[in-house]
Amino acid sequence: MHLSALGPETVDVEAAFGRTVTAPCVSQVDWPAADAAAVDGYAVRAIDSEGASSYNPLLLALVGASAGALPPDSAFLTAAGTLLPLGADAILPFDSAQQGVTQQGGAAVLEVLAPVARGVGVDRCGGGLRAGMAAIPGSRRLRPQDIALLTATGVTRIAVVRRPRVRLVVAGPKAAGHDVLTPMLCLLIARDGGCVEVSPPADAGRTALAQAMARPATGIDLVLVAGRCGVGLDDEAPLAVTAAGGRLDAHGIALRPGGSSGLGRMGDVPVLLLPGTPLACLAAYDMLAARAVRRLAGCLAASPYCVVDAALDRKIVSAIGFTDVVRVRLAGRRAAPMGSAESGGIAGAVRADGFVVVPEASEGHAPFSVVRVHRYDRCAENGA
Amino acid sequence: MHLSALGPETVDVEAAFGRTVTAPCVSQVDWPAADAAAVDGYAVRAIDSEGASSYNPLLLALVGASAGALPPDSAFLTAAGTLLPLGADAILPFDSAQQGVTQQGGAAVLEVLAPVARGVGVDRCGGGLRAGMAAIPGSRRLRPQDIALLTATGVTRIAVVRRPRVRLVVAGPKAAGHDVLTPMLCLLIARDGGCVEVSPPADAGRTALAQAMARPATGIDLVLVAGRCGVGLDDEAPLAVTAAGGRLDAHGIALRPGGSSGLGRMGDVPVLLLPGTPLACLAAYDMLAARAVRRLAGCLAASPYCVVDAALDRKIVSAIGFTDVVRVRLAGRRAAPMGSAESGGIAGAVRADGFVVVPEASEGHAPFSVVRVHRYDRCAENGA
Repeated sequence: MHLSALGPETVDVEAAFGRTVTAPCVSQVDWPAADAAAVDGYAVRAIDSEGASSYNPLLLALVGASAGALPPDSAFLTAAGTLLPLGADAILPFDSAQQGVTQQGGAAVLEVLAPVARGVGVDRCGGGLRAGMAAIPGSRRLRPQDIALLTATGVTRIAVVRRPRVRLVVAGPKAAGHDVLTPMLCLLIARDGGCVEVSPPADAGRTALAQAMARPATGIDLVLVAGRCGVGLDDEAPLAVTAAGGRLDAHGIALRPGGSSGLGRMGDVPVLLLPGTPLACLAAYDMLAARAVRRLAGCLAASPYCVVDAALDRKIVSAIGFTDVVRVRLAGRRAAPMGSAESGGIAGAVRADGFVVVPEASEGHAPFSVVRVHRYDRCAENGA
Repeated sequence: MHLSALGPETVDVEAAFGRTVTAPCVSQVDWPAADAAAVDGYAVRAIDSEGASSYNPLLLALVGASAGALPPDSAFLTAAGTLLPLGADAILPFDSAQQGVTQQGGAAVLEVLAPVARGVGVDRCGGGLRAGMAAIPGSRRLRPQDIALLTATGVTRIAVVRRPRVRLVVAGPKAAGHDVLTPMLCLLIARDGGCVEVSPPADAGRTALAQAMARPATGIDLVLVAGRCGVGLDDEAPLAVTAAGGRLDAHGIALRPGGSSGLGRMGDVPVLLLPGTPLACLAAYDMLAARAVRRLAGCLAASPYCVVDAALDRKIVSAIGFTDVVRVRLAGRRAAPMGSAESGGIAGAVRADGFVVVPEASEGHAPFSVVRVHRYDRCAENGA
């Protein structure tokens, strides 16, 4: 299943946090728009401070805020972020000056105790960003500071990757009358930047499942079917894909847990079948569906979780030919495997801090070897 | 400022994602509630498979789904997650069996090709979780699988740490007419689990700021004031804290950028003053305010970002006595510092992938030394 980012939609900058920009966002303006103080201090002409020392203080006239331009031999108390008065080209730090009142008519003066070089303490016009430069790089998932820069430079609307619309058909068995899969999958899909359309089947029969999958809707980008996808008598989901006019390209994959997953298409729309037991559903979602949703949303990270290196407390045994997802507990930089890939159920995934993926070609890992742990409590990239 | 987690409130489990539980959540039930199949296969009595091999297949009668109990010498096709019929104690995998039809009246039979041990392929009653055990550990920020387990065990309401209510008073200079700080800080506060109450001052004078800070409201947990907190002529925020009946405990801290930050209290409510330039505001928020909001929200992580180790491309120079926040770009496991702690403005924070904190007692880092990078694109723990 080769998926690429969906097309763009234009949204308000305020609502663009966590969305992925489709192309570099080119600035129309210089930022800062003029020379500005980078720090609090006195705006001066640097040349007026030449030769100053605590043994040989130079006197400057302190002028008020109303002055549009800074006269020679004067200083202007300013604050970080304020535009410089015309003529000023440096900010004299507070510890290089001392304020006083002279006898000459009571005018405020500043004793300069050290020279300051031109440009010191100044954010130069366009020093952060020039008109024509990319303010935001392409495929960036927008962060708070990105929203701040866009706002500062007067951008109000921005093109971002459209949110993938995911149809969720939960066909699986309910646990003691409770539907566990719908809330879990809704949270996972939202985490990965998708919008969910829950499409409940009338019953778990083939016809009802096919109807729930094929229900007309504009712009569905991915169909997820959870449950009834094994090889048991009542596992109608694989057959329902065909009944709904789609095709199943793969069913039964070398993943543990999650081996009963399947991949297919209905027209142009990819279809993923996920297992109905909560643990296998979570593992298959993270390994297959998360990548699909994230890729459609324009997200680059391969895993939905942050990855850390940790040393194994005990060995992990895995069969060649299977990708095993083994849950672990973390204690600092040490990881303790929690049984085999298929053990523990969803309660095991609750006790776990993350998981290790043992690839198909590996028989597992020796004790004390360093493995990559996908951390359940740390999601890669800002949530949308 | 010593802050601890706020008191609890009870919310619906469906709405509890990303919230922090106040205490271990004890299960009222066993999970699974009865023995269930962990994998697809045939439910059997293990003893009936004893001695089976491909040279000596044993025959079992295949019985239908309607059978409440499994008769001896029979097998029942089942799916992962389904409760076992009474008497069954193992799941025979598909590759250990072969289905066929005998001559004896056309009844379906199963050839068992390998023995299966008792308990294999079975999720035992209470094997995931026993009544009286903690289903969810205390101070856990709830993840999708946690919501799934709570739902599965019939929990509908749960006690979580109340969201911190943060009053935001933006006093700072606007950049070319645009208020940059409000959208940025609203996103940051929400990221850290807080709810924002924007309290705009009528003007940037002391009285108006004091009024905006002290505006009556029930249950404000933290006041953030952004801008006008330096030592310039118009820096009224520190004085406004006192005018509002509060006190300022510290003003001017050894942090770069962000040195004009301040800490205080208004009655029982902590007050933080943040600088008005966007970069310094971001740095001071992440270093001071994020920790305050997160601690109130019951969150344990010290940094709002995930931390990775990386080797420096170039040296970082820092002055002893200052905590420097130096932005870096990452390329794999290498980090390139982007100028000094105070350079680059908000556009620099947009170009950066993260930052390095150089503590007060350090003069910086040599080239090629390994440093901890706080990654801007990876937030620690799920966003709320």
